[in-house]
This record gives sequence, C-alpha cells and structure tokens, in this order.
Amino acid sequence: MTQHSHQTAPTQFAEADGIRFAYRRFGKPNGVPLVFNQHFTGTMDHWDPAETDGLAQEREVILFNNAGISSSSGEVPTTFREMGANAIAFIKALGLKQVDVLGFSIGGFVAQEITLQAPELVRRLVLLGTGPRSGEGMLGGTPEGNSIFSATYDPPDHLWLSVFFTPSAASQAAGRAFLKRFRLRSKDRDPEVSGEAAVAQRAAIAKWSARRERPYDYLKVIQQPTLIVNGSTDVIIYTVNSFILQQHLPNAELIIYPDSAHGSHHQYPELFVRDVSTFLSATNPWAPRVSKLLKLQSK
Amino acid sequence: MTQHSHQTAPTQFAEADGIRFAYRRFGKPNGVPLVFNQHFTGTMDHWDPAETDGLAQEREVILFNNAGISSSSGEVPTTFREMGANAIAFIKALGLKQVDVLGFSIGGFVAQEITLQAPELVRRLVLLGTGPRSGEGMLGGTPEGNSIFSATYDPPDHLWLSVFFTPSAASQAAGRAFLKRFRLRSKDRDPEVSGEAAVAQRAAIAKWSARRERPYDYLKVIQQPTLIVNGSTDVIIYTVNSFILQQHLPNAELIIYPDSAHGSHHQYPELFVRDVSTFLSATNPWAPRVSKLLKLQSK
Repeated sequence: MTQHSHQTAPTQFAEADGIRFAYRRFGKPNGVPLVFNQHFTGTMDHWDPAETDGLAQEREVILFNNAGISSSSGEVPTTFREMGANAIAFIKALGLKQVDVLGFSIGGFVAQEITLQAPELVRRLVLLGTGPRSGEGMLGGTPEGNSIFSATYDPPDHLWLSVFFTPSAASQAAGRAFLKRFRLRSKDRDPEVSGEAAVAQRAAIAKWSARRERPYDYLKVIQQPTLIVNGSTDVIIYTVNSFILQQHLPNAELIIYPDSAHGSHHQYPELFVRDVSTFLSATNPWAPRVSKLLKLQSK
Repeated sequence: MTQHSHQTAPTQFAEADGIRFAYRRFGKPNGVPLVFNQHFTGTMDHWDPAETDGLAQEREVILFNNAGISSSSGEVPTTFREMGANAIAFIKALGLKQVDVLGFSIGGFVAQEITLQAPELVRRLVLLGTGPRSGEGMLGGTPEGNSIFSATYDPPDHLWLSVFFTPSAASQAAGRAFLKRFRLRSKDRDPEVSGEAAVAQRAAIAKWSARRERPYDYLKVIQQPTLIVNGSTDVIIYTVNSFILQQHLPNAELIIYPDSAHGSHHQYPELFVRDVSTFLSATNPWAPRVSKLLKLQSK
C-alpha cells in the first residue's frame, strides 16, 4: 500500500446525520488517529503540510471539513455545541472508537465540545491558539483582530501574515514560508468557504464569547491529558486565554513560544511536531518515572 | 579521568573579592557549563541529583553556595543586585568566559541580576518557579507561603513537601521520592544555612518585591534565549509570575506542567531534563528550519 501524504491524500467522504463529510486520512496506522479541527473560514487545505506530514510519521492524521464547510455538505450551525456534535458524528462514521483531537483557534472550541459531549471518544487533546468560553477579549472580538479581518490584502493570502504572525522580521519570514507550504498541494484542493458559512461561524463565536457566571468551571470536567500551545503575542485570541485554559483544566501542560502569534505552530513547525509527538507518544505524558532515575543515582 | 556525579563530586573552593566560594563541578565538558542558583535557605545539597546528573550527561554543571551561604565564607547581602555581583565574581574566578545560568525561586532573581550586570557572560537562561521584580503576590509573601514557612515539620524535611508540591496524592508521592533523592549524598554534605543568612535573604526579597513604576520594563533588556518553567499551582511565587516573565522577556519560552507547584522540576525530573537539554543543546533554540521541511514536502 502506498502511503499518502498531505499533498497526495485523496479527498474521501463519509455520511452521518445526513451530512456528507469531506476528509483526508494519511500517515502511519499506529493506534489512535489524530483528528484536526480547523480555524475560522479554514478548509483542509489551510493546514500546514510541515505539521500534518511531520505528525503523520508516527500516527494517522485525519483532516476534515465540518458540516457546511467547503467540500462538506450541510449547514454550519450557529453554536459550537452543534459543531462538536457534527464532528462526533463524523468520527463515529469512520468507525473509530478513540481518537486524539487537535483544535486550532475556533477549532479549539469544537475540540472542547467534542470532549465534553463524548469523553469516551477522546484520549488526548491538543489546543492551539484558542481559549475558554467567555475568554479575555473575546466578546466582540479583539480590536487588533477586528482591524486585521476588516482590512483587504493583495494577494488575499497575506491576510494570514497578519492573523498568524507577529510584525517581527523573523516571524514574517516564517509566515511567507508557511504561505508557500499551504499552497503546495496543487490538485484536488478544497473550494473556498462560503460567506454564509463565515456568518454562521461568527454567530457561534458571539455565543461562545458571551459573559457567563463562573465561565471556566466547565473545564474541570475535561480530564483528558491536554497540551496547550500558543505564541507569546496572539492578538486574535489573546495569549492569556491559553494560560487560563491551563489553570482551569485539571490535567494540562502549557507551552508558549517566543516572538510568535496566533499561528505559533506555523512559525515553529519542527518544534511543534516534536512537542506534540512527545506528548501524544508517551504512555503517560507526565508520569514521574523516578524509580528509573533513582536507579541511575545509586549506580 | 573518573567522571564525578552529584554524589561523588568533591566540594572545591574558589576565591574572589575576599570570598571563599564553595562549589562542585561535574559532568561532560562540552562547551558552555550550566551554573545553578539555589532557592531560599538552600545549599548545594538541595539540588535534585535526578536533575543535576541528568543534565550533566551532556554538559558540565556547576553547583555553588553564594556568599554567606553554608560552606561559603562572606556575608549574605540584602539585595539581589549584590548577590548577582557575587555570583559573577565566582564565575569569573573559575576563569569562565561564558556560561548558561539556571535559577530556582530566589535563585531566579539572582540569575536575572547576573544577566543584567554581565550580559556577555550569559549565553542562555533557565528560570524555575520564579518571577519578576514587583511580581504578583510577592510583597509580604503569599498568604499560602507565609503559612507554610511558619509551620513546623517533623521531620523538618517535610517542609519541602508543602513548599514544592501540591496536595494531590501524585504530587506528594513525587515529593517523597524527591526527599529521598536529595538525601542520597552521604559524605561531605553542606552545613545548614544560618539564621542570619535567612534574615538577609528575606530583606533582599522585600526589596525585590516592593512596588515600582512600570516594574517589568527592565526585562526587555534581557536578550538571552530564556526557558521559563513552573508548576500549575505555585503558591510560593504565584504561577502567573512565570507568565508575566514570558510576556515581558523578548526571547522566552514558557512551559507550565500540570498538577504541580513551586518545585515542578522536582516532580517531573525526566521531563524537565529533557526540556532543558533540548533548549540548551539546540544551536538556535527556536530558529524556524523550514527549508528542511519544505524539502520534505516536495519529495
């Protein structure tokens, strides 16, 4: 069997709850696959092949478009609860009993909802550039984010240089390299997300961001080992929200990379693949293995 | 030449500025040694052999008692500026031109002062369970810290179970393993720190913690690549201070481990050694190496 990569994996389809989900699946079958949940208006083609292929060296990765996004049928719901339910239906349609779940930005909201609604389905969680319900600066969007998303870009892809990267020369250079990588796949690319889908996602973001009493209490329920990753200067979902996630999730590690923004994993794809692989591959990600160390001492 | 370990390295002495500094030096000579700066009332014997020997596998480690501490002569100054100057004098007395500097708790304050006063001497910085000048909850000590340090313990070593570990069963079990490890060295142990030295350290802590205008601006000057590590629930120097350090240092990565406290590195010594080794060994700890990854994609 030929092993597929980010560039060659064919778009396949799975039916559930009347929705035809588009997905691509590749990598080394090795236990628990990793399911990717994408950011605002993103499709399968917006993932970074340096990351997907990097992670696929030791596990299967599954990219998909949730309901109403690009090549998937159905409608984008206006709550993350429903998007989570759709994602669960998709995962079960593949016949999978347990997966690791990765979510980037609003995909991190979906990842949290998947875990809350189907805890038995989720082994571990990776949350990138995201935050909790009612997070800091979320309501109405951040001023920086609103200004970035309302500007026009030529070419349009340059939007992502502002969304994902800091203004520093090093970060912008990494951004331009990322733009090349995510355009490398030439055949069978996803159609752009419709304006309607973007409007529905925005409505869901507004509900997620609304003020609540004791908004972070729900995180205590998520027992899965969780790795949280963000850049030092995320102006789309403020970095402090990653710290808040770590402080309220009972079983979470936080990594913040220097001089980086919402897309820190696109800036440091090698570091990111190393850190996530280490986290996902360990039998128990943080178990103190002091007996081995004690033995080392008494030699 | 026999390679020494944490347990066998002899205590040696170096003279500078009229002070006789006690130190131990061991590990694999391999470029830049790593100099350890200890916590409140701690001596060379309070380091964790699982960490020192772990890190010594790829580099030389240097433990020392700063002026007025235990087996070193002189007096403990009442400012971290002066403790930093003493540490610099010690490092230069060894004839070293460049070192990596690690600081734990108030040793992290000393590490910052070393870097501010002798930037050319410091290649990289590792800051554990520490914080910036005028950090959150520092002035007068945290209520939790004050209560922990004013209680009595039988045996006295059990103080460290409360200072360094969370109340969880897993953290306390890791704590008991740590207490065994740091008592393993049986010969040539350091005398306990004097009450006078502790009083001087407390006076220095009060000055460091005092309120200031724009207290974190000074961190912008520290250009060295810095790795910041802490536990999720440090009640001695609140965990948020590690986040503040990361946000204000221009070139810093933050790692926060789950269910752990002031001594998270004592709880997860293997993870800690792996993370610090990776950080210190890389030619450039965060350089995006995208060209290699792009090549991978176009195969």
